[in-house]
Amino acid sequence: MRAGDLTTPALLADAGVLDANMATMSAARPGPALRPHAKAFKCTALAARLAAAGHAGFCCATVRELEGLAASGLGEDLLLANEVVDRRALARLGALVDAGTARVTVAIDSAETIAAAAGGGVREVIVDVDVGMPRCGCDPSNAGRLADEARAAGLVVRGVMGYEGHAQHVVDRTKREARTVQAMSVLVGAHADVGGDVVSGGGTGTWDCNHVVTELQAGSFVLMDGDYARLDLPFKEGLVLLTTAVSVRSGRHAALDGGLKALAMDSGDPRLVDDCGGVATVQFCSDEHTTVAGGSWSVGDRVGLRPAHIDPTISNHELLHLVDDAEAGGDAEVFESWPVDLRGW
Amino acid sequence: MRAGDLTTPALLADAGVLDANMATMSAARPGPALRPHAKAFKCTALAARLAAAGHAGFCCATVRELEGLAASGLGEDLLLANEVVDRRALARLGALVDAGTARVTVAIDSAETIAAAAGGGVREVIVDVDVGMPRCGCDPSNAGRLADEARAAGLVVRGVMGYEGHAQHVVDRTKREARTVQAMSVLVGAHADVGGDVVSGGGTGTWDCNHVVTELQAGSFVLMDGDYARLDLPFKEGLVLLTTAVSVRSGRHAALDGGLKALAMDSGDPRLVDDCGGVATVQFCSDEHTTVAGGSWSVGDRVGLRPAHIDPTISNHELLHLVDDAEAGGDAEVFESWPVDLRGW
Repeated sequence: MRAGDLTTPALLADAGVLDANMATMSAARPGPALRPHAKAFKCTALAARLAAAGHAGFCCATVRELEGLAASGLGEDLLLANEVVDRRALARLGALVDAGTARVTVAIDSAETIAAAAGGGVREVIVDVDVGMPRCGCDPSNAGRLADEARAAGLVVRGVMGYEGHAQHVVDRTKREARTVQAMSVLVGAHADVGGDVVSGGGTGTWDCNHVVTELQAGSFVLMDGDYARLDLPFKEGLVLLTTAVSVRSGRHAALDGGLKALAMDSGDPRLVDDCGGVATVQFCSDEHTTVAGGSWSVGDRVGLRPAHIDPTISNHELLHLVDDAEAGGDAEVFESWPVDLRGW
Repeated sequence: MRAGDLTTPALLADAGVLDANMATMSAARPGPALRPHAKAFKCTALAARLAAAGHAGFCCATVRELEGLAASGLGEDLLLANEVVDRRALARLGALVDAGTARVTVAIDSAETIAAAAGGGVREVIVDVDVGMPRCGCDPSNAGRLADEARAAGLVVRGVMGYEGHAQHVVDRTKREARTVQAMSVLVGAHADVGGDVVSGGGTGTWDCNHVVTELQAGSFVLMDGDYARLDLPFKEGLVLLTTAVSVRSGRHAALDGGLKALAMDSGDPRLVDDCGGVATVQFCSDEHTTVAGGSWSVGDRVGLRPAHIDPTISNHELLHLVDDAEAGGDAEVFESWPVDLRGW
């Protein structure tokens, strides 16, 4: 099957790029030193490839991701790196533990999340520490006290996590490293108060400048995106939205049949895989179209777009098609079509 | 069932607001004078309400929307207001016509789209005219020639369509009206060359200043969004993303469990339903969280967010929950949970 046989818009993943990115990461972060973040790709088939490469412990942002991985036999060591207070959901995770289907660790950062975890029958937790990005995580000075409270509630505290999200996308390496060092010094301090074997954190942007974490929570590196491509990373972009030119005003513009519902605009517009020697550009995206200016197009042309942000782009799709060459447009050979089976809530 | 029993993030639709918005629109554009655009809500249950109110002809952006509406018994008069050259997809539409399941009209704006429509067994078309927004639609001076070509190919030409998308979101009414008048003068000229009974176009933003179209292609008015709310429209916002505060740093910020994968960032950040008397604001959205600054929050609080753009927000969800009061947070009563069954491609 060729990509040209797919209904467009269709999301293509380059098999060679995926393999190369995984090999690069695995060499630096072998086995459990990498805890791939499933939120980036939300696809058990891709997760299975990572597990086969030795990275069998996964990071999850949602309960659905965790349940889906467990149901696919990928429950060896699942970390819900997010706070959850939904007791029914936590009870389902507790049941997975009881059934031996999955090892489950959940992040806690408050008395409420400790109570919810214990109430749901979850047995293992990790203390989530605010290391500088305003989102989740406790005040670092409270980490030790929360660990004590968790232990008092009968929970095993495996260690700490802290995500330096405010460092991931800093283009200047020196500044990125400095921000990472500062954030990780906070995490190291909290770890001293908490104890446990695990220090979890980091991501694609800080993959080689975070020397503190025992496990890196990276996900985007697998197929990358336009935003991360601005950094000096060795990972290549392997994700392409294949579209069809459905309307052409010669000398003016062309409309492609994939728009912002098939991409994600939080990190900007997509880029053309082939910009016709620098003359064609993306003008704007609307719900179901992308308008390109410049270049020479014909109705029916297959046109590839490189998404600016991998996570929300993939979660807009039902399928991720593994192909031999994502830049080959309609000529690419489709090896497999993977369900994006971990999206939603 | 209360909204507080839903897994968050959950998308709520206010039943009263929906009814009021529909009543306002129906009074001005009764029956077939409104052709609701399914791309805005991608939900057959909501479409059925519009059909019950007399608006039984729908506008579609994708083949899937059209097939889904037809399968739900809503195939009375379906317009694919988009160019499609996928002959297999068009053949499925042709089969719907042959089976008497749906009346199908597709937009054409080129020799290629005429050939594809005729090849797929579609019988009725409409000439899509570029009225000033660079996306789909033919050069207005070619509209008559394309109509002739379509008729020569055995197709019935029902008329013209032209979407003045570049006028929809103009806040200043005078400018919005002027832009609409200009665009519709182009469409009227093309209609004179094309013939047919149908002049289709317009949207929520130009609902009362487009006096040319015989049928208005509006969809967003049903539940509105933050972007359209900036205009002087009588429609109210009825869409709320219900989230849970999962992490709170007192005096600093709180993290809600719905982020840019549950919203859409193309029209900016969401707004808080309750901004705590003006002191709380959305700081930023990340993949699975929204960080709010100011205000006083507790872990477990249900917090409502108003999306900036309805179309891509709804298409991020499996379900749209109809509630008695979307501003009531967890206390809202859930009347029905509607599958968002027309999303994807």
